[in-house]
Amino acid sequence: MSATSYGPSYVRAIAPYIAGKPISEVAREFGLDEARIVKLASNENPLGMPPSAQTAVQRAIADLGRYPDSNGFDLKTALAARYGVGEDWITLGNGSNDILELAAHALLEHDQSVVFAQYSFAVYALATQGVGARAIVVPAKAYGHDLDAMLAAIEDDTRLVFVANPNNPTGTFVPGEQMEAFLKKVPSHVVVVLDEAYTEYLDASQRYDSIEWTRRYPNLLVSRTFSKAYGLAGLRVGFAIAQPQLTDLLNRLRQPFNVNSLAQAAALAALGDRAFLEKSAKLNSAGYKTLTAAFDALGLEYVPSHGNFVLVRVGDDDGAGARVNIGLLKEGVIVRPVGNYGLPQWLRVTIGLPEENETFVAALRRVLGRA
Amino acid sequence: MSATSYGPSYVRAIAPYIAGKPISEVAREFGLDEARIVKLASNENPLGMPPSAQTAVQRAIADLGRYPDSNGFDLKTALAARYGVGEDWITLGNGSNDILELAAHALLEHDQSVVFAQYSFAVYALATQGVGARAIVVPAKAYGHDLDAMLAAIEDDTRLVFVANPNNPTGTFVPGEQMEAFLKKVPSHVVVVLDEAYTEYLDASQRYDSIEWTRRYPNLLVSRTFSKAYGLAGLRVGFAIAQPQLTDLLNRLRQPFNVNSLAQAAALAALGDRAFLEKSAKLNSAGYKTLTAAFDALGLEYVPSHGNFVLVRVGDDDGAGARVNIGLLKEGVIVRPVGNYGLPQWLRVTIGLPEENETFVAALRRVLGRA
Repeated sequence: MSATSYGPSYVRAIAPYIAGKPISEVAREFGLDEARIVKLASNENPLGMPPSAQTAVQRAIADLGRYPDSNGFDLKTALAARYGVGEDWITLGNGSNDILELAAHALLEHDQSVVFAQYSFAVYALATQGVGARAIVVPAKAYGHDLDAMLAAIEDDTRLVFVANPNNPTGTFVPGEQMEAFLKKVPSHVVVVLDEAYTEYLDASQRYDSIEWTRRYPNLLVSRTFSKAYGLAGLRVGFAIAQPQLTDLLNRLRQPFNVNSLAQAAALAALGDRAFLEKSAKLNSAGYKTLTAAFDALGLEYVPSHGNFVLVRVGDDDGAGARVNIGLLKEGVIVRPVGNYGLPQWLRVTIGLPEENETFVAALRRVLGRA
Repeated sequence: MSATSYGPSYVRAIAPYIAGKPISEVAREFGLDEARIVKLASNENPLGMPPSAQTAVQRAIADLGRYPDSNGFDLKTALAARYGVGEDWITLGNGSNDILELAAHALLEHDQSVVFAQYSFAVYALATQGVGARAIVVPAKAYGHDLDAMLAAIEDDTRLVFVANPNNPTGTFVPGEQMEAFLKKVPSHVVVVLDEAYTEYLDASQRYDSIEWTRRYPNLLVSRTFSKAYGLAGLRVGFAIAQPQLTDLLNRLRQPFNVNSLAQAAALAALGDRAFLEKSAKLNSAGYKTLTAAFDALGLEYVPSHGNFVLVRVGDDDGAGARVNIGLLKEGVIVRPVGNYGLPQWLRVTIGLPEENETFVAALRRVLGRA
């Protein structure tokens, strides 16, 4: 056997996730000053970590020689109280990425299949391929989930469906009543992972109670994260809520110390900081208006977004996204090209602080020759 | 299909890892004052995190709203320089637990087998079962690895061998020349994961250069951690060194943000803090003498240890470990029962600070009725 053949063929075939470029990397590559760079590439909260969480982290630093609490007692207790479920309904993850991978590992054998939508989060495909399962990718409808088509795509060997609401990278949203109608029709042996990483950005009028659904649907797992509106992307903490039987399955596979001590402490503080969430949502809403007004003025098509980012079409040819992205990088603005999502004419722009949004718009105008 | 049948049978059969009880949990259960509790259960560094790493963490707190650097540029650069390898020889893990699981996921299909030793680290069995592979458990020799028997146990479908040196939970050690003789004989299509979580505690006379071996053996992956001598258990960072081909395979499966920002910053600082490592090793060596002298005085058998812990036999009956453990918990001392390792007469005691070791010895004497 040749040395090139370690590991299963499905692992060797994985193309790794492409992360947003870190500021330091762009500074190195383009010879720019780090302090001048604007990063709108990874759907982070431009306010950063809430001060309440900073205080909690400061307090927790003394004890980092110890392993984290493998059961996340304090954080799970707080989440259980907040959502009105038992602690045995909660799985903690090293970011919600960990939750998505745990679901794939816990629920799929290599000869089974997974259904998810075209233009949905890249990790669904990665997690599927990582266990050697088969991906059934359902064409998008207006860049969002076509739930009827997804239902029809479920096959006998399907064990898992990934649904993102709002969806990343397109920002589309499925109203609650449509989502629940879908859940009602999914066969009971197929688990639905409802990825709500961006749910905190929804308008009050759009909110629905997916946690209540977990009581009615034993095959529903709701995934949330502290990396977006809660501002804790660097610490890595996400969680899932589902009935105890499904939760137990994920916890059997969970690495015992998957969530570090500071992440637990910070998430606990951030969870109680409703003022920060409101401030973040308000800032996001204002920034959305700024960006979309600029796109309108430039005559650029964009997908109406319910998250903290906007997908915008920057040209007609398949080189447009990459070309404009390079132009923006040279201007010190990092956004996300989405050619790997099959959207080579588009860029995904995270909504930043007012001054970051303005810097981006000015840079975009220059790159497009419209300054 | 009934609701009880989500997931593959091998996942449903996993018994989750049993972590050392956190101090807060013992305080709750036994009505004790947290400040009085001594925890010698999880092989943590009793000095905690080095001050150099604390400073690095303080500096990094400002930026936690951002995702971590998914490629760990700064930490990998430092590790590459330290070990004289390229950055493409390094995999970063959310603790070395993550490295062990990545190796299992990257290298095993569900119909293949893994070889490891009786009484070796529990995660080898968990990672094996997590991918539905078959564990070939080789009986221990004097509580340690029987490398000849492990070699003989390799079957046609074996793709992975886990070897811990020093071994946890027994503390046994295989000298370098024997280990390399073993590596020479392992078939080239079988990957050896050499888990060196405790290597920093070895005496200078026992050290061997396993990184040099990775140049000669493309099927060798050396796993290290910052959770033990480096004092960063709460932050979660481990790493692996192997040739680029094997490293690439693990990185394809690695969650892009598996190592959080503070862990990267702290590990970078701790890596450069040789004084702290030396202080930790010296403290450990003195504590080992204290504990083993006490065991000798009490006539208790123990396994000579090369780690920061000692496995001690606290009675002749199979209830001894659990019974003495409960007695110690009531005294406010947390150690690790190892019945789940098939060692029900034994306890594993982490070497603590001098005063912690004395508290443990005094408590043990009382529990054994030898005060």
